[in-house]
Amino acid sequence: MNAGESIERALKDAVTKTHAPTCPPKLGSALRYAVFPGGARIRPRLCLSVAQACGGADEKLAVSTAAALELMHCASLVHDDLPCFDDADTRRDKPSVHKAFGESTAILVGDALIILAFETLAEAFAHTPQRLAAALRLLSQNTGVPMGIAAGQAWEAEDDIPLDTYHRAKTGALFAAATGLGAIAAGRDAKDWKSCGMLVGMAFQAIDDIRDVVGDPYRASKPIQQDARHERPNLALRMGPEAAEHNAADLVEQSLHAIPACPGRAHLIGKWQQQFQSLLPGTQTTPAAVQVA
Amino acid sequence: MNAGESIERALKDAVTKTHAPTCPPKLGSALRYAVFPGGARIRPRLCLSVAQACGGADEKLAVSTAAALELMHCASLVHDDLPCFDDADTRRDKPSVHKAFGESTAILVGDALIILAFETLAEAFAHTPQRLAAALRLLSQNTGVPMGIAAGQAWEAEDDIPLDTYHRAKTGALFAAATGLGAIAAGRDAKDWKSCGMLVGMAFQAIDDIRDVVGDPYRASKPIQQDARHERPNLALRMGPEAAEHNAADLVEQSLHAIPACPGRAHLIGKWQQQFQSLLPGTQTTPAAVQVA
Repeated sequence: MNAGESIERALKDAVTKTHAPTCPPKLGSALRYAVFPGGARIRPRLCLSVAQACGGADEKLAVSTAAALELMHCASLVHDDLPCFDDADTRRDKPSVHKAFGESTAILVGDALIILAFETLAEAFAHTPQRLAAALRLLSQNTGVPMGIAAGQAWEAEDDIPLDTYHRAKTGALFAAATGLGAIAAGRDAKDWKSCGMLVGMAFQAIDDIRDVVGDPYRASKPIQQDARHERPNLALRMGPEAAEHNAADLVEQSLHAIPACPGRAHLIGKWQQQFQSLLPGTQTTPAAVQVA
Repeated sequence: MNAGESIERALKDAVTKTHAPTCPPKLGSALRYAVFPGGARIRPRLCLSVAQACGGADEKLAVSTAAALELMHCASLVHDDLPCFDDADTRRDKPSVHKAFGESTAILVGDALIILAFETLAEAFAHTPQRLAAALRLLSQNTGVPMGIAAGQAWEAEDDIPLDTYHRAKTGALFAAATGLGAIAAGRDAKDWKSCGMLVGMAFQAIDDIRDVVGDPYRASKPIQQDARHERPNLALRMGPEAAEHNAADLVEQSLHAIPACPGRAHLIGKWQQQFQSLLPGTQTTPAAVQVA
């Protein structure tokens, strides 16, 4: 099974746990709808690739950890799309959860997915309990308050939004959790992987901001200029698309340098370079990054 | 410090962790507002009293566990009050969170409190990791899908609502988590405490249903007949207030019998009898319950 298939299987296993006659049918359907079919599954892939690069990872543990992370990401998307936030009618080319199932079900789907993410993590680490507290702490700190997704999303309700703090919490934090959880799944220290995860996340956010302004070459149907519409700060609006592209390329370069020493470092660098070059065609990272420890 | 003071202190410690310059000010204020001042703190008190009855509980661990449970309860109240659910203008005699801070902040406060509950549990059990997975599993199963609070709340969006399943998930589950987590905090098996926790919760729900129909003798200002207004099933509406009172008294009696053998069993029975008699003046439990193992 390749990485993508393993992640889908682990997500299916996690979501299947919610099937039971005691589950309200509409909630059960909405929960599956929110997770499948997925998007690019970038965060769980990142988590898995770090676990593999660290070497000696328990594959099943790493995949379940990656699935927990994706469930949390799905939860944030469902709540983000609600009328009082982005008021998005579509997500992943189909009606958003609240459009398809109603607002109250969408709120509960988000709640249930957050809980399922923690449950999935607890199950994953049940046989290595000494790593469980660290994994939980990392996931909660990067999703809650003061520096996780919930905090990031809440900045949008403030009059004065600090762009860097906002992007770090809203996007960077879950990428930092992805690299950190990958390391923990392989028995390594999450701290060594925090900064490269955050930099990868900030690079993705920069690319997202640019696409929101100039359009997405891969998804022409995706609505643009949503940040301006919702009065959200946007890097490409603030500094112009060209400077934002330089910034994104710089973040990618920094993230590659920040990958700590590990058995699969060179392979991981090659993989990320390839991924970012497909997302940001102008990105040219120096081969030197491969040699930096 | 008595139980009430210990619980408030642990809640304050947990909420203080969210204070930081990176926390959006409105979210931070709303989060504190959702937790303080509290209601009767029934669930954390139940959790603590079970840990004490089991004997040998680490007091600090038990109190932090109780706080995690209350954070989860506060989260459910914030989301329950939203316009798309109960549309409640007030909670605990002040404007509900969404009325005071807006709907988007209220949704994020609920999310953040769910996450903080898991974080608090992880911190509590950090030094006894072998119990952490069981504690997490119990909290997640009793708050998520298919048999936790989120599932219970979601039944309200269905056309056909099975009253018993709905009440077990919406109310009973968190009481079962309270007794079970108290046992785990004392190093005991949660399974032995599941049924009495569920019965206590179902008794509370029955009392709540009766008060929704006939009024609350202790809180005359509390609006009544909300279940009929929201077309939610209600035990006292379905069987009449008098039969519902008999049912509640029967559940109380059953819950006392279901308390497993433990050093503080007699004391715990006395405590619960006293509490239920104050809530349901007609309740007369037999002294025999004290002798049953």
